[in-house]
Amino acid sequence: MQALTINLGARSYPILVGPGLLETAWAEQARVLGGRVCVITNAVVAPLYLERLRAALAQVGADATALVLPDGESFKNGATLDAIYDHLLGERCDRSTPVVALGGGVIGDLAGFAAATYQRGVPFIQVPTTLLAQVDSSVGGKTGINHPRGKNMIGAFWQPRLVVADTETLNTLPERELSAGLAEVVKYGLIRDLPFLEWLEANMDQLMARDAAALSFAIERSCANKAEVVAADELETAREGGRALLNLGHTFGHAIETGMGYGNWLHGEAVAAGTMMACELSRRLGWLSAADLERVRALLLRARLPVRGPALGADIYLDLMGHDKKVVAGRLRLVLLRRLGEAVTWAEATPAEIRAAIVASCD
Amino acid sequence: MQALTINLGARSYPILVGPGLLETAWAEQARVLGGRVCVITNAVVAPLYLERLRAALAQVGADATALVLPDGESFKNGATLDAIYDHLLGERCDRSTPVVALGGGVIGDLAGFAAATYQRGVPFIQVPTTLLAQVDSSVGGKTGINHPRGKNMIGAFWQPRLVVADTETLNTLPERELSAGLAEVVKYGLIRDLPFLEWLEANMDQLMARDAAALSFAIERSCANKAEVVAADELETAREGGRALLNLGHTFGHAIETGMGYGNWLHGEAVAAGTMMACELSRRLGWLSAADLERVRALLLRARLPVRGPALGADIYLDLMGHDKKVVAGRLRLVLLRRLGEAVTWAEATPAEIRAAIVASCD
Repeated sequence: MQALTINLGARSYPILVGPGLLETAWAEQARVLGGRVCVITNAVVAPLYLERLRAALAQVGADATALVLPDGESFKNGATLDAIYDHLLGERCDRSTPVVALGGGVIGDLAGFAAATYQRGVPFIQVPTTLLAQVDSSVGGKTGINHPRGKNMIGAFWQPRLVVADTETLNTLPERELSAGLAEVVKYGLIRDLPFLEWLEANMDQLMARDAAALSFAIERSCANKAEVVAADELETAREGGRALLNLGHTFGHAIETGMGYGNWLHGEAVAAGTMMACELSRRLGWLSAADLERVRALLLRARLPVRGPALGADIYLDLMGHDKKVVAGRLRLVLLRRLGEAVTWAEATPAEIRAAIVASCD
Repeated sequence: MQALTINLGARSYPILVGPGLLETAWAEQARVLGGRVCVITNAVVAPLYLERLRAALAQVGADATALVLPDGESFKNGATLDAIYDHLLGERCDRSTPVVALGGGVIGDLAGFAAATYQRGVPFIQVPTTLLAQVDSSVGGKTGINHPRGKNMIGAFWQPRLVVADTETLNTLPERELSAGLAEVVKYGLIRDLPFLEWLEANMDQLMARDAAALSFAIERSCANKAEVVAADELETAREGGRALLNLGHTFGHAIETGMGYGNWLHGEAVAAGTMMACELSRRLGWLSAADLERVRALLLRARLPVRGPALGADIYLDLMGHDKKVVAGRLRLVLLRRLGEAVTWAEATPAEIRAAIVASCD
């Protein structure tokens, strides 16, 4: 087992990474559990892992109530959040009852936002069971739900007390979701870790074959990269760079997710296509070469990810991007690449330049 | 004008108290406004003060969009919160757009929770127009909404950037709401400031007559008391004492509010009756004398506040109190008085003792 600490002062917490942790992680963590926890999970994950988690918790004397939600991004909304509140109140969970998220990013975002806002905040524990959740949403404290007008428009920063990433849970992950997780893994290489990008080029086939050692390395390296960024800019207040750099491909990607209807493109798929748009714009600004662009495209293709956006039309992309949180005082601030391994925030791109990059990168 | 600073490190903010501030406070505060603000108010306050606020903001170059909500505690719910989100999204408010609460505690709680959770948090400015909001909810950062099963069950801590308490707005306040605000004013004297309690005994008639100087003194002294408590325990994490002491009368009071249906008893009225229950229990524990109890009762009566709870029956009180946030790991933790001017948190009261105090203090 590997342990990584996210350094956020009084809100610091450990991330445990390794095989079999669903059963073995809890003994030494019993102090953060209290006598009773509330597990939030979904109908896909519950049959696979809920009883194993419950049995492991029982071993350390923690009673677990559980709420099983329907699966999918389309349920990351206010109605599902209300169902969680109803469950917490019905079970008389109090301010000391930890909420445990067992599942992917949707479960983590929903359960985390419920933990942030139930009785003005209760302890939160993440047990991510997808690659995307393990490398992305387990670090950073972002929680929230979607609104019909935009993704993640409602939310809060709420740090977990503990993250348990059991790599064995990836064995049951559909291939499409494995790929989607790899989009975020590749991102860390692109924005700040060229040696990791090169490692990914050498090891992408092992990752796609779910080689345990390769996956563990990639998860740890991704979390370590994200942790460094988050520790320096916890609440995303840095005006330049900082945490915003983690959004490479995300502003374009959110437009794809919203434009296609939540849940039709996986988040990681939209990020992959959005990353290609950001790279295309970076090339047009003279920062990336055509060869750099091709290198990114080839790596994403080996992860079986989409490298072109859907044909929504540039107007719809631009309109949807205008609703994105990355708009500051009316200016669209994008994350672009100065070179492979170095990202910048950039608010100087003209609408015409952004439009051209979209057109060149869409079906 | 008096200015008080709430010291919370990076989240410190000023409270301005005085007559006419609705018009005059903004010039030196323009930097916190940005070019555009979103005012949340209600149908009672808007005709009185919205245009004055809008004109004052325009003087410093701030454009204001406004959402006018229906008035009343019964609208402090998820549906109203959704209406605020819709307005913020429809007006394309971004992360830099301050949300301004113009109204009483309900508006402050709603607008503050929307500010805490819209795009994971935007700047928040409070312009409280009731005595209760000026002396209570303007300090402390508590925001939230009610749930059918309990008051303030959903919420977040979110500090304002600025509070503007214009004492002239109290001239239009219904007498019942003036009284309700005084319940919280009396509370500060009871829990930690015996000289202030004595000042209130000497000046209650001036306060009820809305004497401007008396009101200003009472507001400042109340905010200063609350500020000292909050600065020492921002997130209500102290195990003993700390911020919980501000809840004198509130656990009983929440049961009254919930049991009678939201909005039938004003919060301050429920707190007044709840304070008498806490005092009665304190007397039964040997901490207050019968004369102390009579002194508190006389002061609340001069503020035209209820000093007995409604006849819900003790079982219903106890059941509703079990849902209160003050339950920690199954134990009911109450705020009681060791003596006038000194409160303690107390988890040792037996259900029988609590029941007896309720029975003795109800119609």
